[in-house]
Amino acid sequence: MRFKAEIDVMPLDALLDPQGKAVTGSMKNIGLEMIDGVRVGKHIRLFVEAASRGEADAKVEEACKKILSNQIMESYSFTLEEV
Amino acid sequence: MRFKAEIDVMPLDALLDPQGKAVTGSMKNIGLEMIDGVRVGKHIRLFVEAASRGEADAKVEEACKKILSNQIMESYSFTLEEV
Repeated sequence: MRFKAEIDVMPLDALLDPQGKAVTGSMKNIGLEMIDGVRVGKHIRLFVEAASRGEADAKVEEACKKILSNQIMESYSFTLEEV
Repeated sequence: MRFKAEIDVMPLDALLDPQGKAVTGSMKNIGLEMIDGVRVGKHIRLFVEAASRGEADAKVEEACKKILSNQIMESYSFTLEEV
Protein backbone atom coordinates (compact mmCIF):
# COMPACT_ATOMS: atom_id res chain seq x y z
CA MET A 1 0.00 0.00 0.00
CA ARG A 2 1.13 3.50 -0.78
CA PHE A 3 0.30 6.45 1.44
CA LYS A 4 0.70 10.19 1.05
CA ALA A 5 1.64 12.11 4.19
CA GLU A 6 1.03 15.84 4.63
CA ILE A 7 3.21 17.08 7.48
CA ASP A 8 3.23 20.46 9.23
CA VAL A 9 6.29 21.46 11.22
CA MET A 10 5.73 24.65 13.24
CA PRO A 11 7.80 26.66 15.72
CA LEU A 12 6.64 25.91 19.27
CA ASP A 13 4.12 28.44 20.59
CA ALA A 14 6.44 29.27 23.49
CA LEU A 15 9.16 30.44 21.10
CA LEU A 16 9.49 33.68 19.20
CA ASP A 17 9.09 33.41 15.45
CA PRO A 18 11.02 36.32 13.91
CA GLN A 19 10.01 35.39 10.36
CA GLY A 20 6.33 35.34 11.32
CA LYS A 21 6.73 38.66 13.12
CA ALA A 22 8.29 40.23 10.03
CA VAL A 23 5.44 38.95 7.87
CA THR A 24 2.86 40.33 10.33
CA GLY A 25 4.57 43.72 9.99
CA SER A 26 4.50 43.52 6.21
CA MET A 27 0.75 42.84 6.24
CA LYS A 28 0.20 46.27 7.77
CA ASN A 29 2.32 47.90 5.07
CA ILE A 30 0.17 46.49 2.26
CA GLY A 31 -3.17 47.37 3.83
CA LEU A 32 -3.92 43.99 5.41
CA GLU A 33 -3.90 45.26 8.99
CA MET A 34 -6.74 42.85 9.87
CA ILE A 35 -4.22 39.98 9.68
CA ASP A 36 -2.05 39.23 12.72
CA GLY A 37 -0.38 36.45 14.66
CA VAL A 38 1.46 35.07 11.62
CA ARG A 39 3.67 32.07 12.30
CA VAL A 40 5.76 30.44 9.59
CA GLY A 41 6.77 26.79 9.53
CA LYS A 42 7.35 24.03 7.00
CA HIS A 43 4.96 21.88 5.06
CA ILE A 44 6.31 18.55 3.82
CA ARG A 45 4.59 16.15 1.44
CA LEU A 46 5.97 12.64 1.01
CA PHE A 47 4.99 9.13 -0.01
CA VAL A 48 5.55 5.96 1.96
CA GLU A 49 5.23 2.29 1.02
CA ALA A 50 3.90 0.18 3.88
CA ALA A 51 1.95 -3.02 4.54
CA SER A 52 -0.63 -1.18 6.63
CA ARG A 53 -1.73 2.26 7.75
CA GLY A 54 -0.22 1.57 11.19
CA GLU A 55 3.18 0.81 9.68
CA ALA A 56 3.03 3.93 7.46
CA ASP A 57 2.14 6.02 10.51
CA ALA A 58 5.14 4.65 12.42
CA LYS A 59 7.54 5.36 9.53
CA VAL A 60 6.33 8.93 9.08
CA GLU A 61 6.56 9.46 12.84
CA GLU A 62 10.16 8.23 12.72
CA ALA A 63 10.98 10.53 9.79
CA CYS A 64 9.49 13.51 11.65
CA LYS A 65 11.55 12.75 14.77
CA LYS A 66 14.84 11.95 13.04
CA ILE A 67 15.00 14.39 10.12
CA LEU A 68 12.04 16.63 9.51
CA SER A 69 11.70 18.47 12.81
CA ASN A 70 13.88 19.73 15.63
CA GLN A 71 11.82 18.83 18.67
CA ILE A 72 13.53 21.41 20.87
CA MET A 73 12.12 24.22 18.75
CA GLU A 74 9.36 22.71 16.65
CA SER A 75 6.24 20.58 16.85
CA TYR A 76 4.88 18.43 14.04
CA SER A 77 1.57 16.96 13.00
CA PHE A 78 0.56 14.98 9.94
CA THR A 79 -2.25 13.31 8.09
CA LEU A 80 -1.99 10.07 6.08
CA GLU A 81 -4.05 9.21 3.03
CA GLU A 82 -3.90 6.03 0.97
CA VAL A 83 -3.14 6.77 -2.69
CA MET B 1 -15.47 37.49 13.76
CA ARG B 2 -12.01 36.05 14.06
CA PHE B 3 -10.73 33.31 11.80
CA LYS B 4 -7.62 31.14 11.84
CA ALA B 5 -6.12 30.33 8.45
CA GLU B 6 -3.82 27.36 7.84
CA ILE B 7 -1.96 27.93 4.58
CA ASP B 8 0.27 25.55 2.62
CA VAL B 9 2.66 27.00 0.05
CA MET B 10 4.32 24.31 -2.07
CA PRO B 11 6.74 24.33 -5.01
CA LEU B 12 4.83 23.71 -8.25
CA ASP B 13 4.86 20.06 -9.32
CA ALA B 14 6.49 21.00 -12.61
CA LEU B 15 9.53 22.43 -10.81
CA LEU B 16 12.47 20.65 -9.24
CA ASP B 17 12.61 20.82 -5.46
CA PRO B 18 16.29 20.44 -4.49
CA GLN B 19 15.54 20.57 -0.76
CA GLY B 20 12.96 17.80 -1.09
CA LYS B 21 15.36 15.76 -3.18
CA ALA B 22 18.07 16.10 -0.52
CA VAL B 23 15.63 14.99 2.18
CA THR B 24 14.56 11.98 0.08
CA GLY B 25 18.25 11.01 -0.13
CA SER B 26 18.69 11.38 3.63
CA MET B 27 15.75 9.05 4.26
CA LYS B 28 17.69 6.23 2.59
CA ASN B 29 20.72 6.93 4.78
CA ILE B 30 18.75 6.48 8.00
CA GLY B 31 16.96 3.29 6.95
CA LEU B 32 13.71 4.88 5.78
CA GLU B 33 14.06 3.78 2.15
CA MET B 34 10.27 3.20 1.97
CA ILE B 35 9.83 7.00 1.94
CA ASP B 36 10.16 8.87 -1.35
CA GLY B 37 8.87 11.83 -3.33
CA VAL B 38 9.55 14.32 -0.56
CA ARG B 39 8.65 17.94 -1.36
CA VAL B 40 9.24 20.77 1.07
CA GLY B 41 7.20 23.96 1.24
CA LYS B 42 5.97 26.41 3.83
CA HIS B 43 3.14 26.22 6.30
CA ILE B 44 1.75 29.53 7.54
CA ARG B 45 -0.75 30.03 10.34
CA LEU B 46 -2.38 33.42 10.82
CA PHE B 47 -5.46 35.11 12.24
CA VAL B 48 -7.77 37.49 10.45
CA GLU B 49 -10.55 39.77 11.71
CA ALA B 50 -13.45 39.98 9.29
CA ALA B 51 -17.19 40.60 9.20
CA SER B 52 -17.88 37.30 7.43
CA ARG B 53 -16.22 34.12 6.25
CA GLY B 54 -16.31 35.42 2.69
CA GLU B 55 -14.43 38.58 3.64
CA ALA B 56 -11.84 36.57 5.62
CA ASP B 57 -11.38 34.28 2.63
CA ALA B 58 -10.76 37.27 0.33
CA LYS B 59 -8.19 38.79 2.73
CA VAL B 60 -6.26 35.55 3.09
CA GLU B 61 -6.34 35.08 -0.69
CA GLU B 62 -4.90 38.60 -1.08
CA ALA B 63 -2.17 37.88 1.50
CA CYS B 64 -1.23 34.66 -0.31
CA LYS B 65 -0.98 36.44 -3.67
CA LYS B 66 0.85 39.55 -2.45
CA ILE B 67 3.24 38.27 0.21
CA LEU B 68 3.08 34.63 1.15
CA SER B 69 3.68 32.89 -2.18
CA ASN B 70 5.55 33.45 -5.39
CA GLN B 71 3.05 32.30 -8.00
CA ILE B 72 5.70 31.69 -10.63
CA MET B 73 7.23 28.93 -8.52
CA GLU B 74 4.68 28.04 -5.88
CA SER B 75 1.03 27.13 -5.41
CA TYR B 76 -0.96 27.76 -2.24
CA SER B 77 -4.04 26.36 -0.55
CA PHE B 78 -5.64 27.18 2.76
CA THR B 79 -8.41 26.35 5.19
CA LEU B 80 -10.29 28.85 7.37
CA GLU B 81 -11.75 28.12 10.77
CA GLU B 82 -13.67 30.51 13.01
CA VAL B 83 -12.02 30.85 16.43
